[in-house]
Amino acid sequence: MDEHAQRPRWSRRSMLTGAAAGLVTPLVVNGSAAPFNIAAAQPRGKLRQITLYAEPVDGGLLGYGLAPGKATIPGPLLEIYEGDTLEIELVNSTDQRLSIHPHGVDYDVDSDGSPLNDSFNEPGETRTYIWRSRTQRRAGGGFYLPGSAGYWHYHDHAIGDHGTAGIARGLYGGLIVRKAGDLLPDKQFTIVFNEMSINNKVAPDTPMFEANHGQRVEFVCVGHGNQPHTFHLHAHRWADTRTGLLGGDDDHSPVIDNKDLNPGCSFGFQVLAGEGVGPGVWMYHCHVQFHADDGMVGLFLVRNSDGSMPAGAQEAIDRFHAHQHEVAENKSSGTHTGHR
Amino acid sequence: MDEHAQRPRWSRRSMLTGAAAGLVTPLVVNGSAAPFNIAAAQPRGKLRQITLYAEPVDGGLLGYGLAPGKATIPGPLLEIYEGDTLEIELVNSTDQRLSIHPHGVDYDVDSDGSPLNDSFNEPGETRTYIWRSRTQRRAGGGFYLPGSAGYWHYHDHAIGDHGTAGIARGLYGGLIVRKAGDLLPDKQFTIVFNEMSINNKVAPDTPMFEANHGQRVEFVCVGHGNQPHTFHLHAHRWADTRTGLLGGDDDHSPVIDNKDLNPGCSFGFQVLAGEGVGPGVWMYHCHVQFHADDGMVGLFLVRNSDGSMPAGAQEAIDRFHAHQHEVAENKSSGTHTGHR
Amino acid sequence: MDEHAQRPRWSRRSMLTGAAAGLVTPLVVNGSAAPFNIAAAQPRGKLRQITLYAEPVDGGLLGYGLAPGKATIPGPLLEIYEGDTLEIELVNSTDQRLSIHPHGVDYDVDSDGSPLNDSFNEPGETRTYIWRSRTQRRAGGGFYLPGSAGYWHYHDHAIGDHGTAGIARGLYGGLIVRKAGDLLPDKQFTIVFNEMSINNKVAPDTPMFEANHGQRVEFVCVGHGNQPHTFHLHAHRWADTRTGLLGGDDDHSPVIDNKDLNPGCSFGFQVLAGEGVGPGVWMYHCHVQFHADDGMVGLFLVRNSDGSMPAGAQEAIDRFHAHQHEVAENKSSGTHTGHR
Repeated sequence: MDEHAQRPRWSRRSMLTGAAAGLVTPLVVNGSAAPFNIAAAQPRGKLRQITLYAEPVDGGLLGYGLAPGKATIPGPLLEIYEGDTLEIELVNSTDQRLSIHPHGVDYDVDSDGSPLNDSFNEPGETRTYIWRSRTQRRAGGGFYLPGSAGYWHYHDHAIGDHGTAGIARGLYGGLIVRKAGDLLPDKQFTIVFNEMSINNKVAPDTPMFEANHGQRVEFVCVGHGNQPHTFHLHAHRWADTRTGLLGGDDDHSPVIDNKDLNPGCSFGFQVLAGEGVGPGVWMYHCHVQFHADDGMVGLFLVRNSDGSMPAGAQEAIDRFHAHQHEVAENKSSGTHTGHR
Repeated sequence: MDEHAQRPRWSRRSMLTGAAAGLVTPLVVNGSAAPFNIAAAQPRGKLRQITLYAEPVDGGLLGYGLAPGKATIPGPLLEIYEGDTLEIELVNSTDQRLSIHPHGVDYDVDSDGSPLNDSFNEPGETRTYIWRSRTQRRAGGGFYLPGSAGYWHYHDHAIGDHGTAGIARGLYGGLIVRKAGDLLPDKQFTIVFNEMSINNKVAPDTPMFEANHGQRVEFVCVGHGNQPHTFHLHAHRWADTRTGLLGGDDDHSPVIDNKDLNPGCSFGFQVLAGEGVGPGVWMYHCHVQFHADDGMVGLFLVRNSDGSMPAGAQEAIDRFHAHQHEVAENKSSGTHTGHR
Repeated sequence: MDEHAQRPRWSRRSMLTGAAAGLVTPLVVNGSAAPFNIAAAQPRGKLRQITLYAEPVDGGLLGYGLAPGKATIPGPLLEIYEGDTLEIELVNSTDQRLSIHPHGVDYDVDSDGSPLNDSFNEPGETRTYIWRSRTQRRAGGGFYLPGSAGYWHYHDHAIGDHGTAGIARGLYGGLIVRKAGDLLPDKQFTIVFNEMSINNKVAPDTPMFEANHGQRVEFVCVGHGNQPHTFHLHAHRWADTRTGLLGGDDDHSPVIDNKDLNPGCSFGFQVLAGEGVGPGVWMYHCHVQFHADDGMVGLFLVRNSDGSMPAGAQEAIDRFHAHQHEVAENKSSGTHTGHR
């Protein structure tokens, strides 16, 4: 009766772990005498176990990875279904205390990832963090307490006390909790607007995401740092809902193509690549103008449906690289072309 | 037939007023010849009368209170049902002109609270402000004009012309308008991100909110000042709806645990304290990293369901106080540890 | 069977164009071999053709207009129904390269308006941009890919590379895509929070919008520039939905009167002018306090239902002008009264 048993439950990257998976061990929640029978309401699901390695990355940065020497920025996109439990063995291969703190899921104080709760890895230490999830349930009066499904994220919460320095250096990643029945994408991309960078890169070194015309593409967008940002994707739009899709004629949610992406916030959505607009090279960027001018711009290459390059696409990519180099050169000579 | 007649209609704090309450006096709206029979559509409800005192508060601050000498920052959490009218006699016990301006409810120009409409109290003056509310009604085409229900707020709009200086010094509070049938909380907390403070306090002096495991807790969050903020609560989440709850399987609203909280904006939500995560000390904070580092952090203590302290909670509280003192000492010696 | 055939399809201003209109020419979408039969799903609608002129405007500014010498800031409010196609012949009457880039609608790379895609007008050049729109359709699993309906906007994307300098000088406007059956307004106003201005004006020169008590008024709000803003309208509120209205008792969307309005974002809503509050002069302003103090404030004059001035309204308008002049004078003498 597991409706999603036959589907891929992990992003391609997270499949690299070879993590053992088994049936969930019933979890005992603290405070069994609590009202509303909280412990009994704990949903059943899969227990997923992975090991994450926090490591130095080139350029003085830090990353999470699913194997030693494989850390990336952002870290691996983690993905579970409501009801699943994710057990993360975090290996700290750096010389600083650090942690992993998730948004959206359930965790005891021991897995909070905060120095407040003495929940972090000392340098060289290995520590296990447990994240649980749940389905929605009745709250009374026709209302429901929400489940865990959403486009979430995780990050360090211990370097620089609140994680400020760990996040700045790259310790973050995306986390998806799905509902049974959610549509699954062909491709997934994580975009983190971190201070004045995208995934700790600035143009022209920002990621170029690629898909074929018509593929279902899932974007997971996360904000970090200290600056306000807005995320804009050219030629595509989505509903401002949990999934980015609408529920039907009665769903009056706004449809948007530009959304605030501020520190600690996250959202996600699915689009069909190039739907209604065709293949080509489409910009995604922060719409705060000076941020775009200063390099918070990247490319979404929608190839032809057979995977070939659309006419004009390579020329656009070349312009992107040439222009951004020009900007960089002008900046190094003291001219802030971004604010011209 | 008054569905909510038997329920508490005021927060505990606002009950202190002993405000007289009676049946509503039918209100005549300006411009009775207006289309759509606006006056006739005015819903019936209770008339609530209170007196608020705007007063100096220690530290050069200002506050609203329900009795002389009882001003607090934030001011009392006011609460009505859709259809109710709130009549506020505001006593200005300061030496500055000031006012009270609400969000979300209806008011004539005389109750606007703005100097533009000559609507304020001179120093020492008492003035009455009237706030009305309403239920939703048909707008045509299957659409409805929204009613007044929501998590709103009120603030000064006259010191420093637009209220800038009044708000900065503490003249603000929360306002809830409920729909009949809304779930009622066991505990209510108002959190105002005002410039670089929480309720005009910085850590470790920010409020520690307390509830027992499983209690229904209502947070009312308000933004003020000049900075962009995002509100994050550890280990709890809510739907981005009017109530923070979902309406069922067809409700695809996002579920979040981090939300923009910018000047003049407000939202609220209910959670079951510690649901699925257990008792403990949970942080709430601005997720703009430098803001957290600079003291926009507070604690939500979830006690055991019998009210006793959970294991490790006191130690966490002690760490919070010790750490923040350390930060303060470093800052006074010129080191901005927040940005390390 | 065209449900909206008898209704005005263009705002009053855009009616000035005398644009030829005919039945839609079936459009061939790139990549006909794409999955999901994207081309076949392209909805049918009207083809609308207009000419826009990008021109210098007094004060070193730039604007779009529907006839030579008629450029305004913001440009004309464009309005179509889902399924319609809008063909814009853009005449560049300036000495700079520039473009027009829309949000919310479909366009090929040639109509992207970005230098990345070599899509802009050289000085003096005329170029055609094509914007298409569509209705929602099934995505599977009970979900729908959203249609184009929404409160959108358009702007230059070529001066200063990402349009930074073009937007700063006034090259922007509103764009509405309606669903069949949407309620139509009596009045429409476009409000653009552009850097520290409203429609490139500061108080007391910001627009005063006027309507009669009870008229259905539509606000289209757009953010631009580099600053975070929040839009507040006194004495009126709206639902945070596509239309600003609710869909019924099951619609638990938040009701708001203050909303983030950050660069590249847009929203819109309809209210009945003065409903429940009466005629009068109501402020709209950025709720970031220093922004309001520095002039991001304007007036919404709700006249009596017969069009006459409400009691006290002229006095309020006079106060607005006198106060703002006072602020301006103090600023020129070095006193920043806004931050007092």
